[in-house]
Amino acid sequence: MARIAVYDTTLRDGRQGAGISFSLVDLVAVAHKLDDLGVDYIEAGWPGSNPKDIEFFEALRHEHFRHAKIVAFGSTRHARSRVAEDQVLRCLVDSGAPVVTVFGKSWDLHVREVFNITEAQNIDMIRESVAWLKEQGRTVIYDAEHFFDGYRDNPDFALATVRAAAEAGADNISLCETNGGMLPFDIDEITRVVRGEVSTPLGIHCHNDSGCGVANSLAAVHAGAVLVQGTINGLGERCGNANLCTIIPDLAIKMKHEVLASPACLERLTDTSRIIAELANLPHDPSFPWVGANAFAHKAGVHVNAVQKNPRTYEHIEPERVGNRRHILISDYSGKSSVVAKAREFNLDLEDRELPGQVIDLVKRLENEGFQFEGADASFELLLRRAMGLYKPGFELKGFRIINHKIESKASVNEATIKVVVDGIEEMAVAEGDGPVNALDCALRKVLEKFYPILKNMSLIDYKVRILNGGEATAARTRVLIESRYGDEVWGTVGVSENIIEASWQALVDSIEFLLMKHLDGEG
Amino acid sequence: MARIAVYDTTLRDGRQGAGISFSLVDLVAVAHKLDDLGVDYIEAGWPGSNPKDIEFFEALRHEHFRHAKIVAFGSTRHARSRVAEDQVLRCLVDSGAPVVTVFGKSWDLHVREVFNITEAQNIDMIRESVAWLKEQGRTVIYDAEHFFDGYRDNPDFALATVRAAAEAGADNISLCETNGGMLPFDIDEITRVVRGEVSTPLGIHCHNDSGCGVANSLAAVHAGAVLVQGTINGLGERCGNANLCTIIPDLAIKMKHEVLASPACLERLTDTSRIIAELANLPHDPSFPWVGANAFAHKAGVHVNAVQKNPRTYEHIEPERVGNRRHILISDYSGKSSVVAKAREFNLDLEDRELPGQVIDLVKRLENEGFQFEGADASFELLLRRAMGLYKPGFELKGFRIINHKIESKASVNEATIKVVVDGIEEMAVAEGDGPVNALDCALRKVLEKFYPILKNMSLIDYKVRILNGGEATAARTRVLIESRYGDEVWGTVGVSENIIEASWQALVDSIEFLLMKHLDGEG
Repeated sequence: MARIAVYDTTLRDGRQGAGISFSLVDLVAVAHKLDDLGVDYIEAGWPGSNPKDIEFFEALRHEHFRHAKIVAFGSTRHARSRVAEDQVLRCLVDSGAPVVTVFGKSWDLHVREVFNITEAQNIDMIRESVAWLKEQGRTVIYDAEHFFDGYRDNPDFALATVRAAAEAGADNISLCETNGGMLPFDIDEITRVVRGEVSTPLGIHCHNDSGCGVANSLAAVHAGAVLVQGTINGLGERCGNANLCTIIPDLAIKMKHEVLASPACLERLTDTSRIIAELANLPHDPSFPWVGANAFAHKAGVHVNAVQKNPRTYEHIEPERVGNRRHILISDYSGKSSVVAKAREFNLDLEDRELPGQVIDLVKRLENEGFQFEGADASFELLLRRAMGLYKPGFELKGFRIINHKIESKASVNEATIKVVVDGIEEMAVAEGDGPVNALDCALRKVLEKFYPILKNMSLIDYKVRILNGGEATAARTRVLIESRYGDEVWGTVGVSENIIEASWQALVDSIEFLLMKHLDGEG
Repeated sequence: MARIAVYDTTLRDGRQGAGISFSLVDLVAVAHKLDDLGVDYIEAGWPGSNPKDIEFFEALRHEHFRHAKIVAFGSTRHARSRVAEDQVLRCLVDSGAPVVTVFGKSWDLHVREVFNITEAQNIDMIRESVAWLKEQGRTVIYDAEHFFDGYRDNPDFALATVRAAAEAGADNISLCETNGGMLPFDIDEITRVVRGEVSTPLGIHCHNDSGCGVANSLAAVHAGAVLVQGTINGLGERCGNANLCTIIPDLAIKMKHEVLASPACLERLTDTSRIIAELANLPHDPSFPWVGANAFAHKAGVHVNAVQKNPRTYEHIEPERVGNRRHILISDYSGKSSVVAKAREFNLDLEDRELPGQVIDLVKRLENEGFQFEGADASFELLLRRAMGLYKPGFELKGFRIINHKIESKASVNEATIKVVVDGIEEMAVAEGDGPVNALDCALRKVLEKFYPILKNMSLIDYKVRILNGGEATAARTRVLIESRYGDEVWGTVGVSENIIEASWQALVDSIEFLLMKHLDGEG
């Protein structure tokens, strides 16, 4: 099947999403991750629209990309300016980007009500802008904004706009489903009409407002488009842009198209998706198709059983092809086979036939209290080892006290004192911290590092808090999930209590005990 | 267009999703919310598979539903049992549900490798189970598990299984895309083949593993299916089931089908989606199509401008049709027009032409520090009022101290003392709490309730913590988002600091100040 070009707009349209704000360092890091993934085009921003984008294009001049081409995005010339003197077009050319994407209006509603110009004036703006950018030696992609809505309202005008772009020499015409409300049937039909009108290669740019961002993109490819625009993790305004992390493997594995710089690139997809979520400071949705932590996770006992026999029974592909992996979830839906399979993940042999049943009872009781082991494998492994008698605690707590003190509007101060016993030796430490849990964490490490120097290289990388069964009648329980890192290893632990400090303490202790178990007892 | 039946499986297949666990009270509450929404079928569970489902069906006998029919789900008879003596079928009939759904195998791979029986035996199991359930007077839906994968591998066998169900008298045959890896083109083609083979009405049951759960469901309807299975918010194993909150409005508004008990039901969709997320104790994804908090949110200045002129320019439908509403987001992408529009939401008139620019500069600086106003309208309104000189603080803090003390494995104790000044009167209070923030909240309310009795009826309903820019080199900042309630009013506030207690304090203060402002100054 045809090669389909991947055009990433995470750094332009994706950045318009709620809650997304990249620093300049992040922007450069994301661009390199996209290049590593092997995308063809990286739309880096709208030079001239704001100082950060200008700075970013400046920084990109000094960066080397192996495969991806940097794209500058902007509008066609202003209605009342000459093309050669237009500010926006000038910024696009000055950005240094080899590829320029300009968007123009396809919908007569916008021409009338937003621009207040005639249809003929709008078509001139498109033709002159594309032609001038071509004269400046740029590869030019014409984004036909609102093309599908425009075609529905006034097909003659919508088609006239793309003909103008084609005649002016655009290298690609991308049909934009800007408002995101179309269904695949519409996209298929209208894309075929445009293919009959112009010979310029077509692209597609979809949003997800009807929940069909991915399917609409695939429908356009099915109808002949050869370039797909989208964002990593579907970042973007409202319901997001079409999610490239879903579209890329759908095109490559399901539709057998050639995509990305090389076939091996697909294995980097899961990592790319997670790292960019991290850089965007957004949680990574565990239910993301292909790349989510739960995308190949099995919970129901009957599914776990069957997948053990033959993965094809409940998995549509091998998770490794997109760099993901299979996961057995432990919950009150789990049967004995899940616990045995999970123990095998940890290289634990559950010889005692009574044990899995007891562990499930314990898990059910703890889940009733609010524990959740699905994101806390380390706590679950400790629970298994405790149940199997394979666990020796690394220290014993005598007590701790945390004080937080605030005077008027000055920043408050946190201090924690702690006393522990290791191998019969009692030790105390005191530490300050940014917050109470941080102070406690610092004091605990300080006192334990005397016995276990390995702790110096372990760090807490994420700390999540969730209030369970909130409300007035019952006391709210707090669940704390901690993610820790040592070198390349990352593990999750959990604690639950009505008291956030108690819950944090449980998760902190599991986190440290897990490291000590893995690296001091010769395990892992 | 034809009426399409909506078949909800949130309480059966949806419950298999990671992190989902409903109490019995929640299960009954969800069933009523689904009935209020006007769905046709509520698949309540698998009676006999576990004690909670048996209890739930027992409880349902005493509940009245206006429109929805309760469905019991289970497998066809066991390979080695007689149909009249089969445990699972007996439980289905005994459940009291008027509708029974039984699933059987359509994929020869499963028949061979999971069941270890012959194809003929499998077809007998389907035929006898459906026929026996019909003899017991039930409406019978036959779920053809893995139908599409089965058809791909062995179309003759797959079609023979559904013919058996049709001949045995099934009222509906639902084709299940169990592994979720198909694309709409596949669904369309294969559904049309089945339509040519059997005259029984068809249903569709999709998962989202290729990101096309919604589009695949719509493709099946396009090809002639008249019943759609799915879950609220797409809850379900791996990447989730097809999301009914997207499919329902797509069918009703985009494809013009008749759905739900009455046309007015659609307006309950957003509420239903949010309440069920709440009952499932899961965050409500703000980017959900149709029902998400951001589904009609506008951030880019140019979009905000255009939507003010004519909503159709950047909105595919009127948000009110699905019970949602438009939202202007304030961020460093916002122009002056966003601030003016947002102020108008609060009934604030920004007369001073200098002010919007100053507010944007302040917002940009605060967002750089980690503040986020998109989920904290109340903090943003306070910020606007402070900037406009319309704000008078309700109290002044002299200081607080929080102590958390733990001895050995005993539960730790939290105590907070606080001193404030109101109208020149100094007051102190001390309180214990479940956690340090709760102790501080209790002490603050205790001391302020003397002056403002209205605080007795305000409650903190959600408390979210996020660690920003984690890592070793820089100190991690903590962002706290608090949701508070007073009667029907719910509002969000935000605080940011390196110290979780400091961040919580900021959000707590804004939360209380917002209530006092709205109800003591005659506003709102």
